Order: sequence, then structure tokens, then C-alpha cells
Amino acid sequence: MPTPPEALAALSSLLGERLNQTHALRATHGQSETHVAAGLPDAVAFPETTAEVAAIARICAAHDVPMIGWGAGTSLEGHALALRGGITVDFARMDKLLSVSAEDMTCTVQPGITRERLNEELRATGLFFPVDPGANASLGGMCATRASGTTTVRYGTMRDNVRALEVVLADGRVIRTGTAARKSSAGYDLTALMVGSEGTLGLVTELTLRLYGQPEAVSAAVCAFGAISDAVECVIETIQSGIPMARIEFLDIDSVAACNRAAGVNMPAAPHLMVEFHGSPAGVQEQAERFGEIAADWGSTGFTWAEAAQDRARLWKMRHNAYPAILALRPGATALVTDVCVPIKHLAEAVEATRADIAESPIPGPILGHVGDGNFHAILLVEPGNAAEMQAAKGLSLRMAERALSLGGTISGEHGIGFGKLELMAAEHGPAWDVMGQIKTALDPKNLMNPGKMVRVG
Amino acid sequence: MPTPPEALAALSSLLGERLNQTHALRATHGQSETHVAAGLPDAVAFPETTAEVAAIARICAAHDVPMIGWGAGTSLEGHALALRGGITVDFARMDKLLSVSAEDMTCTVQPGITRERLNEELRATGLFFPVDPGANASLGGMCATRASGTTTVRYGTMRDNVRALEVVLADGRVIRTGTAARKSSAGYDLTALMVGSEGTLGLVTELTLRLYGQPEAVSAAVCAFGAISDAVECVIETIQSGIPMARIEFLDIDSVAACNRAAGVNMPAAPHLMVEFHGSPAGVQEQAERFGEIAADWGSTGFTWAEAAQDRARLWKMRHNAYPAILALRPGATALVTDVCVPIKHLAEAVEATRADIAESPIPGPILGHVGDGNFHAILLVEPGNAAEMQAAKGLSLRMAERALSLGGTISGEHGIGFGKLELMAAEHGPAWDVMGQIKTALDPKNLMNPGKMVRVG
Repeated sequence: MPTPPEALAALSSLLGERLNQTHALRATHGQSETHVAAGLPDAVAFPETTAEVAAIARICAAHDVPMIGWGAGTSLEGHALALRGGITVDFARMDKLLSVSAEDMTCTVQPGITRERLNEELRATGLFFPVDPGANASLGGMCATRASGTTTVRYGTMRDNVRALEVVLADGRVIRTGTAARKSSAGYDLTALMVGSEGTLGLVTELTLRLYGQPEAVSAAVCAFGAISDAVECVIETIQSGIPMARIEFLDIDSVAACNRAAGVNMPAAPHLMVEFHGSPAGVQEQAERFGEIAADWGSTGFTWAEAAQDRARLWKMRHNAYPAILALRPGATALVTDVCVPIKHLAEAVEATRADIAESPIPGPILGHVGDGNFHAILLVEPGNAAEMQAAKGLSLRMAERALSLGGTISGEHGIGFGKLELMAAEHGPAWDVMGQIKTALDPKNLMNPGKMVRVG
Repeated sequence: MPTPPEALAALSSLLGERLNQTHALRATHGQSETHVAAGLPDAVAFPETTAEVAAIARICAAHDVPMIGWGAGTSLEGHALALRGGITVDFARMDKLLSVSAEDMTCTVQPGITRERLNEELRATGLFFPVDPGANASLGGMCATRASGTTTVRYGTMRDNVRALEVVLADGRVIRTGTAARKSSAGYDLTALMVGSEGTLGLVTELTLRLYGQPEAVSAAVCAFGAISDAVECVIETIQSGIPMARIEFLDIDSVAACNRAAGVNMPAAPHLMVEFHGSPAGVQEQAERFGEIAADWGSTGFTWAEAAQDRARLWKMRHNAYPAILALRPGATALVTDVCVPIKHLAEAVEATRADIAESPIPGPILGHVGDGNFHAILLVEPGNAAEMQAAKGLSLRMAERALSLGGTISGEHGIGFGKLELMAAEHGPAWDVMGQIKTALDPKNLMNPGKMVRVG
């Protein structure tokens, strides 16, 4: 149902030129980075204040118009597409670092700020925000998908690093969840309920985040293993022994080949781990030595240390560029990026079975992952317009998800559900998915907040 | 409304002698450790399986009978009292450690197991569960109140350490929240919603918990400061500098006097910090040295190290016995135990203002707290039956809560709401308290799960 003219008129009157109805802008807000089909909003709103977001919500509620939040547009499961039309609320003008508390190691930001800019603005304080999904996502978007990434093994996901929120609900009410204190036992944890709810319960307008001291010393390394299972056993033993790894990333042999080609390096053709240590100079040295001993026990070879800042930057740039490097393996290809997470004790089995499935399929699919969390991705490379290949890719993704569930894991480690994985929610959650729907209906009875994503209602 | 005879008959038929209606047992389940008045259930049920808990819920739902969970009975805000009669579900017979995954560093337990027994059973695995509220609480109860304690500064609260739950809902449905994987972006975080919900949304029947490696080396120390603000500044600088404190506890001068008397020690009459370091031998030594330097900068004196296991045990036994030690300052007194948490930058101000309020009141009230979290308690000692003193104590508690809110903090750091602090929820949460009520009503429309606690509905 198209947005009624009265609603558009009321929104224009509220926002002036900051309500944009041009096709060009609607189109950029109606497509995503991946294979998911487009869904255009009827208009894009650019609020500047929480009060404006609340006013938008009241107008939309009065006219039964869907509301979809928009950050940096980097999500991978079609989260921000306007499946049922409505208004996309773009937080580009609400992108400020509002305050920093050095004593409490927190900051408060607006949702439109990106993680790279946040860390640039924090640099002089000696603090940083650690969650790093790779893409330069907005903090509002990272909150919505419960993002994580390479540093999660040490610093946690968005769940662990959002302390408080301001949220505009479907009816325009503005609530605050959490406090500036480090912990609380006062009431339901609405902060955690909102983190990862993908804009289906409300629009986040302010976030208070945990910060950490920039580590005094940092060291990184890369090393090869004879088998995936040896790399995973090395990770398990490292974590069990209490070494506080800051990053511990896995690349399979195909991802290594892609990185070698794109970055002009020469890693041996074998599964690799890339690791990073944060701490005091003596602490980092001790961690690195202990990790080296464990890795050697598991037959690691080709240890290359990156202690100088520029060497570490090169290493992690290579890791962050693994996605385009893998895309370049098959020029012109579209990627279907999979994302599952399993208990670490089943990780080697899950990765090896996925590699076997891919080997039998008609498409390439290098694998990499945040192995300290049991989270891995196969980047499935599909020829655009080739329906048989896309079907094969979707079949592989489904098998990965089903295998993750059978091993006690989850269908999404960090990319979220959007509508790309909606059909798998019942298999993971059973009757708990109905409970999510009951909560959605209680807070958004007209199903206006990002409808068609994550839950099924009505 | 008393529980209808048909409901009691159905429960008796289900549980046999494990449904107990004796006055003696109802009375022990109808009173709490603190000043809160009694509330007796009509019967106490002792289920042995999740299926039995679900059957109890279905019977109670069919007859509109309240259900109240019971663990070890150590809560401080009347959480488990049967304010409106009904059935207390005592988890004493569901108290097993079901499984341990060494690779994933998790275990799965039934709700009735206590934290001390859990750690005894884990000892041989080299792993431990760190959350330590002082009392030997049950894990189900700790989950219900989102408990924390002395080790939270390092290891987090129950929010951070419950990975997955099995929950029986008000209508008898059994759901599982979370998975065995370390993280997930699949759906609303129902685990976090249940943790801290005080049995108002469901009865937890199984918990999967994060475990940690028993530290290779441990060291502890106690030291005195010239002023509360110096102790707090020392804590802030210690945390900012990235020293991973395992414990950092504060005792005011009156708490020190109580401990001196009870434990036969001779700490100087000054505010103290008690600290503990976990790590590798070299890491602990480095942490301890760096902490010692920071403490010296803030004028600390009388540094006493406790490196041998028996010395550390004596130190923490003294800390855990601070509550009876303080009670012994005024023989026969009843305690009103307060519990607020503020941003650390306002902690010294909050503690000093509370001390000034107590000094002007007719009652004693030593203060201690988990200073690394900004959480502190005044133990207000009231003569039983002295209405004026109880009124003064309640007034002090209210002022602490109001001050915590005015400083950006929370009315409960770790003890929870129960009905002891129900009246303060609106002040902390504003319209977000209504949202909690909407969620409660969505999941428990007849308000049968621990009614009268945490939320206000209907």
C-alpha cells in the first residue's frame, strides 16, 4: 500500500527538504550489497533530532506507514529494504559523538556515526571502541544487527558493548533503556532486547557505548597449519589456557590464495591463523610466546610476526580486504555471503563438511572466519543471472545453516536475519520464535517498524 | 484468592508427596532474609523434570493460580514471597550439573544447583564459574535477579555469563533461548530478557553458563587510603590503565571496624580497598606492581599482600563475612541492606553524601561495595520493632536511590527489585517501565508468574 499523500504532506511539513521523494534517492535506499532483491521506500527522511524521529513515528503510526531505519547501508541480509514501502529514516544527519566519559570509559553517540569516524574522534582520549565488523558500518546499524567481528573474541559483540539506548517506539514514545552505571538489576534488560532487533521494535536515536583503553602494546602474527582441525585445536587450547587473544582469524586454503593474489604476498598453500595480542609490552610478549608454543605443538609453520604498526596494518588490511580479494577470484561474480556460528568443539567438523559440499558444487566458495567465536563465512561466488548457480549457492547456505543447528549452533553469527534468513528462524527457535512475535506485537501492534524482517506476525 | 482445591488435587496427583501443603514448609517459603514482610504460598511443589514444571504451569494456568520460583531463598528484596498465594516451585530436586564442554568452556546446569556446589563439581576440570554474590545462592535465583558481586569487575554479571536457557512460560510452553555457540545475531535476545526478570516471565529450568579457566596464579592485597575519593580515584586510574582486576572492593571506616572486630585483625581506621589479580605468574606480578604504583600515587598506606592461598582465603572470608560482622556491631539488629550503582565518576560523591546522611540519622550504617562497578551498599542496622528507626532506614534507602538516579545510576546494582523497590521503578525507567509491563502482559496475560514483582500490570 503506497504511503498516503496526507502522510507525505505531514512529513514534508515537518522536515522540509529533508524529506526526499526522488526516485534516485529512493533507489539507493532500496537495494543492498548482496543478492537480495530491491525494495524501495516511498520517501527518505533525514531527521536531525530525536524529537523529529518521534514526530515521524507519530505521523507514520497515524497513517499506518512502515518505518525503516538506515545507517550506512552495509548490511548483508536485506535488513533495510522497504519491503512494504513506507518511509526510510536515514540517520546521516544524526551522526555525532555527543560525549565521552573518560572515568567511566563510555561515550554517547548518535546512530549515524560510523565506527571508523568514532574511533578517529576518540583517538586523542586514549580510548577506543573495539567492535569491528569489517565494513565501515554505522553504530545504529551495528546495534540493530548485534554486529561483531574480528575483535569479538576479546571484546565481545554489540550485546556486550552497548550500555544504554534511547529508542523511539512505533507509536512515537521515546524511551531510555539502561543507565550510565556499569550494571543494573532494575527491570527487564530492554537494552539487550533492542540490540539485534533489526529496527523491528523501535528506532535507536542514541547509544551509550563501552570503551577500552588503547592497548599499550600490540603484536600480530600469521601462521600456517597442516589441517583445519589442527588450526582449530590450536585455537581451543589457546583460549582454554587463558591467553586473552585480541583477534584470532581463520583463512582456508582458498581464502589464502585470494589474499596472496590481491595483496601480492606469498603465504603457503595451507589453512592459516592470523592473531593479535593486546596488553602491556611484557604481557604481549608473554602472550605471543605462549601462543607460539601452542601453535608449534599443533604443527604450525611459517610463523611471521608483525610487530611494527605498519606491518600490522598491512596484515589486517589484507584480512579486511579478503572479501574483495575473494570476489576478484571470479571477475564479475556476485557473492552470497554465508554466516553461521557453532560451538568451537564442532568448528573443524563444520568447516570441513562445508568445504566438501562446496567442492561438489559448481561454484567456488572460499571460507574464512572468526574462529575464536566458532563463526565462519563461505563467500559463494555466483555468475550474475545464472539461476542454477544461485540455486546451488542457496542450497549450500541452507545446508550450512541446518548443519550449524544440528551441531548446537546458530543460523547467524553476526550478519542477522533481515528477510534473507527469515525462513530459518522457526528451525532455530521453535516456539521461542512465536514469543518474539508476541513481543513484537505488544510493542508494535500495527507492524510498522521494519515489517517483514526477523519475526512473523499477524 | 486461595488456590482452588481442584488445582491442589491436580498438582497432588502429578507430584504425590512432592506437593507439600504443611504450614511449616509454607512458612519457610514465605519469608525472606530481610525486613520485607512475609507472604505464604498455598503449597510448595518440588518438581524433578522440566516436563513436571510445564505440567505445574498448565495446571496453575487453568486455575489462575500464581507460580513463584524458589532457589536458595537468599534474595534481599522479597523476590520469592507469595504475595498473592499460589504455588511456590522449589527447585531443590533440580540441582544437577548436567554437562561440561571443556572445549567451549561452558556447562549446563539445573536451576537448583548452588554456586559453591557448582564450583566444587567443576574443580577437577580446571574451569570455574566466576559470578559470586557472596551468599551461596542457586544459579536459577542468580539468573532471576541478574546477580553479580565481587568478581564482576573482571568477569561480568549473570547477564554476561548465561549463554542459553530453557524456560517454562506461564501457559506451560517450554522454550529454549540462545544456543551453544558463543554468539548469535538470530532474533531477539530472549536470554537477556529472561536474565533479571525475577521469575515474572517464566520459570528457568536449565541454564548454559560460560566458564573460565582457573587462573594459574592469584594474588590479593589490602590497603588503606586517606579519603574515600582517593580510593575511588585509584580505582578509576587502575581500570583506565587496563589492569584486569579480578576483584576491587571498598570498605568504609565503619565496615573496617566491623571486620577488625569480627576477624580479629587490625586494619587502620581508614577507607580500604581489597584487590585480587588473576593471570599467569608473570602477569599477576606485573599487575600487582602497577596497581601498587597507582595506589601509592593516591597516598595508599599499610599495603598487605596475600599471596599464599590460605592468606587469600582469610582475606576474602573476612570480606564475605562483612555482613554478619556489621550485624554484630549492634547485637539483635535487623538489617536493611541498600544497593545502588552509579557511574564511577560520581561514586566518591555518592558514598560521601550517603555517609553524611547516615551520620545525621539515628542508626548506624557501614558502607561497602564493588567499587570497580560503582556499586555500593549501606547496611542499615535497625532495632527490631522500632518503627522510627525503620522509617529512618527506609528514608535513607530512598535518598540513596534518588541520588543514584540523579547521578545517572540505577536503584539496584545487583539485588533486584522484587517488591521492595517496586515504587522506584517509574522514577528510573519512565515510559520504559510501561514497556516492561507490555512485555509481561504479552507473555503472561493472566499475571500468574511471580505477580506483584518488578512490573505493574492490569
